[in-house]
Amino acid sequence: MPTKYPFPVRPAIADVASSQIREVATLGMEMGGIIPLWFGEPNVPTPAFINQAATQALNDGKTFYTLNRGIPELRQALADYMTGLHERPIDFERVTVTASAMNAIMIVAQSLIDVGDNAVLTAPLWPNIASCVQVMGGEPRQVALDEHEGRWSLDLDRLFAAVDHRTRFLFVNSPNNPTGWMMSTDDQRAVLDFARRRGIWIVADEVYDRIVYSRRCAPSFLDIAERDDLVLRLNSFSKSWCMTGWRLGWIAAPPAFGPILEKMSEFNIANAASMAQYAGIVALRDGEPFISETVARYEQARDLVFQRLAAMPRVTIARPDAAFYVFFGVEGMNNSLEFAKNLLGKSRVGLAPGSAFGPRGEGHLRLCFAATLETLSEAMERLAPALS
Amino acid sequence: MPTKYPFPVRPAIADVASSQIREVATLGMEMGGIIPLWFGEPNVPTPAFINQAATQALNDGKTFYTLNRGIPELRQALADYMTGLHERPIDFERVTVTASAMNAIMIVAQSLIDVGDNAVLTAPLWPNIASCVQVMGGEPRQVALDEHEGRWSLDLDRLFAAVDHRTRFLFVNSPNNPTGWMMSTDDQRAVLDFARRRGIWIVADEVYDRIVYSRRCAPSFLDIAERDDLVLRLNSFSKSWCMTGWRLGWIAAPPAFGPILEKMSEFNIANAASMAQYAGIVALRDGEPFISETVARYEQARDLVFQRLAAMPRVTIARPDAAFYVFFGVEGMNNSLEFAKNLLGKSRVGLAPGSAFGPRGEGHLRLCFAATLETLSEAMERLAPALS
Repeated sequence: MPTKYPFPVRPAIADVASSQIREVATLGMEMGGIIPLWFGEPNVPTPAFINQAATQALNDGKTFYTLNRGIPELRQALADYMTGLHERPIDFERVTVTASAMNAIMIVAQSLIDVGDNAVLTAPLWPNIASCVQVMGGEPRQVALDEHEGRWSLDLDRLFAAVDHRTRFLFVNSPNNPTGWMMSTDDQRAVLDFARRRGIWIVADEVYDRIVYSRRCAPSFLDIAERDDLVLRLNSFSKSWCMTGWRLGWIAAPPAFGPILEKMSEFNIANAASMAQYAGIVALRDGEPFISETVARYEQARDLVFQRLAAMPRVTIARPDAAFYVFFGVEGMNNSLEFAKNLLGKSRVGLAPGSAFGPRGEGHLRLCFAATLETLSEAMERLAPALS
Repeated sequence: MPTKYPFPVRPAIADVASSQIREVATLGMEMGGIIPLWFGEPNVPTPAFINQAATQALNDGKTFYTLNRGIPELRQALADYMTGLHERPIDFERVTVTASAMNAIMIVAQSLIDVGDNAVLTAPLWPNIASCVQVMGGEPRQVALDEHEGRWSLDLDRLFAAVDHRTRFLFVNSPNNPTGWMMSTDDQRAVLDFARRRGIWIVADEVYDRIVYSRRCAPSFLDIAERDDLVLRLNSFSKSWCMTGWRLGWIAAPPAFGPILEKMSEFNIANAASMAQYAGIVALRDGEPFISETVARYEQARDLVFQRLAAMPRVTIARPDAAFYVFFGVEGMNNSLEFAKNLLGKSRVGLAPGSAFGPRGEGHLRLCFAATLETLSEAMERLAPALS
C-alpha cells in the first residue's frame, strides 16, 4: 500500500484530488479582505420561519433517531411538493430523505458502482460527483458540453457513445453547476429512451431546479419518467430554501429501490438530523414566497454581473437561464487555478477556477452571484483591470 | 449484474444483510402495544440547555456550510474535553468533527478498505461495522469474545492470529455494544504494541466511554497512544448527551490523517449540521452534571434488570460494567431472531436478537435498559413467563 502518506491508506483515496475550489478559498481566507464568490452558497441565512420550525421540534423533544428514509410527514410533504411541480404524480413510496444531496450521491455510487464500472457524466460538473465514483473504484467518464460564445449544449450522440457494458449510470446535472445550462424536455426524453433501451440508471441531479429565471421550475426527469423507470432524481433543501448548513436532501426513486436506499442510509448516517427534517416540512409548506423573492433577487444580480463582465474585453460570457453562477471564458488564460490564485492578490476577489469542473472547464472562471448588488458591484470594479 | 432486484445494483450491496434488529422492530411497530427495548437509544430527549444552544445558533444565522472538519470552536472544545479525560493531551490538529460515529465508520472504511482487504473486528458487535467493510468490498473477520457465565473477555492471541497481510485495521468497540465488555488498559497496550509492529491501524469505537458504572470514563486508546500512532478513535454525542437525532460525532486521529478525513467528509456530507455543531460546544461545556445524573439513572435500571433477569431460570447473565445493555443467554434458544419475533406476540416486549451481532451472538438477546424503572419493571413482568 505505498502512498505519499506516512501510513497505509487506500491508493484510490490517496489519489482522489482535493477540491481546487477549496484550494483557492483556503488561500484567500488566509489573506483577508477578499470578496468571496467561490462557493455555491446563498448569501442569506435560512429564513426565520424555517428556523422556528426546528426550534419547535427541539422543544417538542424530536431529538431521537428517525426512520432511515426520513419521517413519514416529510416524505409525504415531498411527494406532494413534487406532484405539484411536475407533470406526473409522485407518491410517498418513491421518496427517501437524505442527509444532503452529497450524501445521496455517495449512497448512489455505493449502490451502483463496483471496481471497474464506470459512470458517464455531463461536464463541466461539480467535481465531487466524479470523486464519489472514484471512491468506489469506478471510472468517471466526463462528456463535455459544447460551448458557443458562452452558451452550452449537449451532444447526445457523444454522450451515448461514451456508454459501454460497464456503464452503471448516466449522470445529468441540470440546471448545471457551473454553466447554468438547462436540459430541454426533448433531450431528457432522448436520454430516458436510451437508458431504457440499455437498462442503465439515470441519476438526475436537479438541486437548482427552482433557481430558474423564466419559469417556475426547470424541466425535470420527473416530468417524463414512469414510476418504475430507472431514474434516481436527487434534490436538496440547500439552494431553494437557503439551508446549506442543515444537510437535508431527498431522492425520488422507483419504489423497488427503496429498501436499498433504506439500508444504505442506515450504514452511512442512519438518518438526516431530526430537527432539520421537521424544518423541511415547514419549508415546503410555507416557502414559496421566499423562493420567488430569492429568485427575483438573483435575477437582478445575474443581470448586473452579466452586463459588467460582458463589457470586459477578455471575457466571453452568455446570460445563464438557471442556477446562480456565471461561468465565463477569459482570453489568454490557460491555467485557471493559477489565475484564480493571482486574482486574490491583484483583485481581492475569490472565484472558482474552471479547471475544477473537469473537461472544458479550463479557460473559465466561476463566479457565484448569490450576493448583494453592492458586493457584486464592488467585485466588478475590482475585477475589471485583470479582465480588460 | 444479476441480483434478486428487478434492476441493476451492485451485487456487494444486494448481498449486505439488512439489520435483524430493524426486522424485529418493524414487525413490532406494526403490532402496537409493545415495550420497545430493541434500539440503542436513550429514553429521554436532548436536555434543554443543548437545544437552546442550537436555537441560538439558528437565530444568529449559523446556517451555512462549515469547514469539512467542523467549526474550529468545536474542534478546540473536543480537544480540551479529551485532554481533560485521558492520560495524554489531545490537540486541535487531531480532531475532526463527523456527522455521527456511523458517518465516521463509513469514511474510515472508504479510506482504508480496498476490494480483497479485510478488517479484524471483535464480536459480538453492532452489525453496521461489518456492513461498512462489506460495502467497500472487504471481508469483515469477526473474532468472538469468550463468554463465561455471562462475562465476556478477549483472547488476544486469537485476535492477532486473524490478522494477515491484507488486514487494514483492527476494530475494537469498548465499552462494547451489546455485551457491556470493557477492554482493560493492559489489553489495549498489547493491541497497540501488536498494531505498531505490524503497521496496521486500530479503529477504536468508544462511543459508550462515559456510560460506565464504576469510574468517570472507560479505558481508552487515547490514554496510551502517541500523537502519531495509527489510531483512529471514534466517538459520538448520541449516547453521552442524548443526541441520537442530531448526527454528531468526532474522530481523534494522527494529524497527518487530517487531510484524508477532510477530503472524505467533503465527498460524503460536506459537514455535520451546523446548528448541531454549535450545540455540541455547549454540551461539552455544560454537560457533566447531566452525564452524571444520566449514568446514575442507568445504574438503577441496570440493577433492576439484572436482578430480575438473573432470577429467571432460562437466563444466563452477568451485570455489565458499561453501556446500557444486558446481553443475556437463553437456555434452549437456538434461533434468537425467531425467538425475538415470538416474544412480540407472547410478551409484548421488543428485544434485539443476538444473531444480529455476529459470531457468539446467537443464543442471546439484547435488552436496552435506557428506560424508566416503571417501564423496565413492567417489561420484566411480561418477559418472566417466556424465560422461566
